[in-house]
Formats: sequence, C-alpha cells, structure tokens
Amino acid sequence: MRIHVALPTTMAHRELLKTACPKGKFVFKEGDYSKEALAEAEVVIGNPPPEMLHSLDKLRFIQLGMAGSDNYRGRLREGMLLANASGAYGLAIGEHMLASLLMLIKKLHLYRDNQSEALWRDEGGVTSVEGARVLVVGLGDIGGEFAKKCKALGAYCIGIRRTVHDKPEYVDELHTLELLDALLPTADVVALALPQSAQSAGLMNEARLRSMKRGAILLNVGRGSAIDTDALVRVLEENLILAALDVTSPEPLPAEHPLWRCKNCLITPHVSGFYHLKQTHDRIISIAARNLHAYSKGEPIGNLVDDATGYRMTENRL
Amino acid sequence: MRIHVALPTTMAHRELLKTACPKGKFVFKEGDYSKEALAEAEVVIGNPPPEMLHSLDKLRFIQLGMAGSDNYRGRLREGMLLANASGAYGLAIGEHMLASLLMLIKKLHLYRDNQSEALWRDEGGVTSVEGARVLVVGLGDIGGEFAKKCKALGAYCIGIRRTVHDKPEYVDELHTLELLDALLPTADVVALALPQSAQSAGLMNEARLRSMKRGAILLNVGRGSAIDTDALVRVLEENLILAALDVTSPEPLPAEHPLWRCKNCLITPHVSGFYHLKQTHDRIISIAARNLHAYSKGEPIGNLVDDATGYRMTENRL
Repeated sequence: MRIHVALPTTMAHRELLKTACPKGKFVFKEGDYSKEALAEAEVVIGNPPPEMLHSLDKLRFIQLGMAGSDNYRGRLREGMLLANASGAYGLAIGEHMLASLLMLIKKLHLYRDNQSEALWRDEGGVTSVEGARVLVVGLGDIGGEFAKKCKALGAYCIGIRRTVHDKPEYVDELHTLELLDALLPTADVVALALPQSAQSAGLMNEARLRSMKRGAILLNVGRGSAIDTDALVRVLEENLILAALDVTSPEPLPAEHPLWRCKNCLITPHVSGFYHLKQTHDRIISIAARNLHAYSKGEPIGNLVDDATGYRMTENRL
Repeated sequence: MRIHVALPTTMAHRELLKTACPKGKFVFKEGDYSKEALAEAEVVIGNPPPEMLHSLDKLRFIQLGMAGSDNYRGRLREGMLLANASGAYGLAIGEHMLASLLMLIKKLHLYRDNQSEALWRDEGGVTSVEGARVLVVGLGDIGGEFAKKCKALGAYCIGIRRTVHDKPEYVDELHTLELLDALLPTADVVALALPQSAQSAGLMNEARLRSMKRGAILLNVGRGSAIDTDALVRVLEENLILAALDVTSPEPLPAEHPLWRCKNCLITPHVSGFYHLKQTHDRIISIAARNLHAYSKGEPIGNLVDDATGYRMTENRL
C-alpha cells in the first residue's frame, strides 16, 4: 500500500505513522502534490488539489490536514473516502477566541493603544466571563472547545448547531439555527465558528448585528463571509458592539478598509489555525495515524466527510 | 451599635447590611472619614486613615473594603478587630491575569500594534495555556483564582505560599518560597500575586529574571516593588522574556520611562482591582454583611487580619 504524506512531519510523526501501518510504503514529500507523486498513491495524507482527484484512479483514501473540506464537495470518485482533521484545531482556535474575548472585556486593546503613547490612564469598568451569557453559533470541534473553556470559567453557554440531540455537558442550552434571532439580543458574547456554507454566508446581516445587546462582543473565526462587513463597520462606528475577527471579508483586508480604523474591533489576520500551535500539528498527525491504521485493517475510519453535505459523518478520532 | 459605612453602596447593598444587623444604627456616607463621622462609630465599613485609629476609642471593628492591609500594621488599639476583603478581588484580578497571559501567548499585543498601521501580517507561532507550567507566587485569594482558571484550561499549576499544608486541588504542586530559585527556570509562566512585605520587595531581582525560561511570561498584579524594574527593562530589551504588569515601580510610570517602549511588555495602569468589575463591589459588601452579622452576635469573624504579620488569620467569608 503506497502512502503519500505531503504534510510536514517531524521524525516522531513519521515513526507514529509507520507504526500505525507497518506494511505501508511511505513517501514523505512535504507539499508535493504533483501528478507523479500522487498517481501511484492509494492513500494521501495532505490536501491534494480537488481538481486532480478525478484522474487519480489508484487513490482510495484522503486524510486531509485541515478541518474545512468544502473545496472537495462533489469532487470524489466513486469509492474514494475523505476524512478531515476535525478535532485538531479546537485547542488552538478555541484558545485564540478566549484570548480575544478576554482582551476586549478587560479593555486590554485600549490599554495597548494607550501604551504606545506612554499614557497611564484608567479606562474604567470591565465585565467578566463568569456569569456571562455566551452564544456559540456552530458547536463543532472549534466552537465546542471555546464553549468548554468559557463554561470552565463560569459562563452560561448556549450552543447552536444542526441537531439538538446529545447535548454536551459544557453547554447549558442547545438549539438549532431557527432560534438565532430570539437568542441574539440576550447574549453578552456571540461567537461564530461556522464552516463555509450557503447557510452561513451573510448570516450576521445588519438587522441581526443591530439586534445584539449593547456592548456585546462578536467573535468570528469561521469564515469572513458569515458577517456583512459593511454593516459591521456601521455598527462598530456607532459603538453598539465590539468585535474580534480572525477572518474577514475581503481577505486580506485592504489597508484602506474602514474596519482597520474601528478601535472597538480586534483584527487578527487569519492566524488562529494553521500549525501556529505545535499541538495542532501533533493532533493532525495523530488523527492521520489512527485513521491510517483503521483503513489498513478495514476498520471504521473517523472524521469521514459526507461528499453530499460536507459535514462529518463519523466521530472525530482525537 | 453605631455602624459607619464609608464604602459606596447601592440600595440593595444597604438592605443587605441592615438585614445582617437589624439593631444597628447605620450611617451611610461614602468617602467620609472625618473625625466627626468616625468618633461615634463602633463599626466602620471602609478604609479609615490608619493614623486616626489611635484616637477612636469607641471603634471596635473595622471591615476594610480592600485586600491589602499593610498600612494598618501596628496601628490597631488594644481590642480592635480588623478584617480585610480578601475573596472579593480574586475573580476580577484572576481574570485580568488570565486575559494578559492569553494576550501575550497568542501575540495579540503584536496584532493590535499592527492593526494601528492597517498591517495584515502573520506573526507566526503561538503557545498554549493547555500543558503550560504555571508558577503562581503568592497563592492567596487572587493567585488562587488565577491558578484555578489556568488549571481549568489544562495548565500544570505550581503554587508557592507560606505553608504547604492543605494543598488545594487546583494546584499540582505546592511549595514554599525556598524553592523559588529551583522552580523559576522550569516555568512557562511566572505569576506574582504578593502583598506588600519585606519578603516580596525586590523578589524578582536581575538574577532571578535572567533565570527564567527563554520566552517565558512574567505577570505581576501584587505590588510593583516585587520586581526590580531596571533589571526587567534590560531583560525585556534582550527579548529574554515577556511581561504583563498591572503594577509598576514607580507608579504611575512616568511617560519617559523605558518600560513603555518595551513591545514585549503589556502595561495596564493598576486597574485590575477597584470596583471595575461589578462583582467585586458586590463581594465586598457580602463579606461585610456576613462579618457584621457575626460581630453583632459575638460569633467568629472571617477575614481577620493578624496585626503582627499582616496576614489573614481566619478563613475568608465569601
């Protein structure tokens, strides 16, 4: 069984993968998605260009190194299996979200601005995560990790996801998107952690942004398109809410964009994921190793993506 | 029994205090520490000037509105009882510490600086609270709350305090100050939450600062004097560590001080406490009400301060 590993790997990662599939013939070539490299592979660990899949007739199993798989929708050949790396990014992105939230509620963004002017000035009252109502829209791996952290710090957590069965213990309430409009005005924090989809595009339109509680905080780590950016600028300029965005629309945000000048908005340039946290890289390889083992033994693979919906069909393997 | 309440109070706070001591004659005068106001009082809820205490012969019980009581050391008349507000500040200051820590490890201070220049630039790798070794020097109410939050986020927590009996479950190890030098080089985060004392002044001297792990984070919310500021500037300028300071020495920090120009240092102007968080104010009044009730019934008072050591002798009452 030929296994092409195009993700970056350390020596320890390679050992882990080899141990998971002792009979595999491994090729480790970081970033190599050439036709020659992929043509002989039965398994690819990496993110091959979706448009190449139709021509790869030996390829049976693709283990992605990322959580989002929307580019692969409808690209799989009959019998091809696709697994994402859901579970790998929750820690990194969930902590980034918590960091952004705490920065805004403790006014550290203002103190940092003051610091650049050597200004010792009290900016007044702050709020707390303890006792805050946190609404997490998109309670997958990433939204779930964020909710878990908020809950551990004493927040009241409300999750929104596609189905409401099996409410996790770290949310106090679980609802579907139908309740979004009713919940928005009640939340101190609204966190968006949504995949790219028809449902998420433009979700936070001007009316919804304006329905948020005065002084509430909006976080976005999913896709920039989930928020109407022009409307957000208006709402921020009126000081109705605060925001922390790791994704924007457009992206990168042009230097002349008015969002840059909104002091009550924290902008990070789509950096919360990737391998910026070492643990993310380790987790991806760990998921790949378990799935590779399962695939080679004909056992159920975790993190399998449904080609029709783009959502995960099986439990994540972390 | 005449009770002079000089702390600010809401209507609800006044009701709570009156219910705690129905026979008390209450005078609510925010900020009034005049001789006339204090002379008739048996109980003062507030922070009376320490130098006045010797002349107040009716005063039997002082409930402070703050955690630090070092100014009162040796000022009490025979038989006077002094209780602090330990327990009230843990949430506010513990969350501020966590916010500062997360801001630095997620490089949000750099992203905020970049934002002011409309600069979309990836600043690279980050670290995590999960799995970090967090050393908390001064495991009182504030240090303890911070440790609890770090532990809830997956950190390995090491506490340092005066005694090692009754290790709380939210620290993995508990030691006394004798182990500081051995522990400093092993910690990813060193958090100082110490009261003013001969032991804490100058605790983090240049040798200790230099013994910290490269890239580690130093937090200080106790007293600015716990750190040698000139040495800290040198260590920061050499990029050996990062720091977040809510207290500095001197304070306020003069505009020309080189610490302001250290990009790897976050400075907040001694704002983590006070009543900046509504819950802090509520907690102080709640402690005062319980202690007032106990005092009026001749029952044991919580949060009593030992005039000789300045430390709390009885459990905090929150």
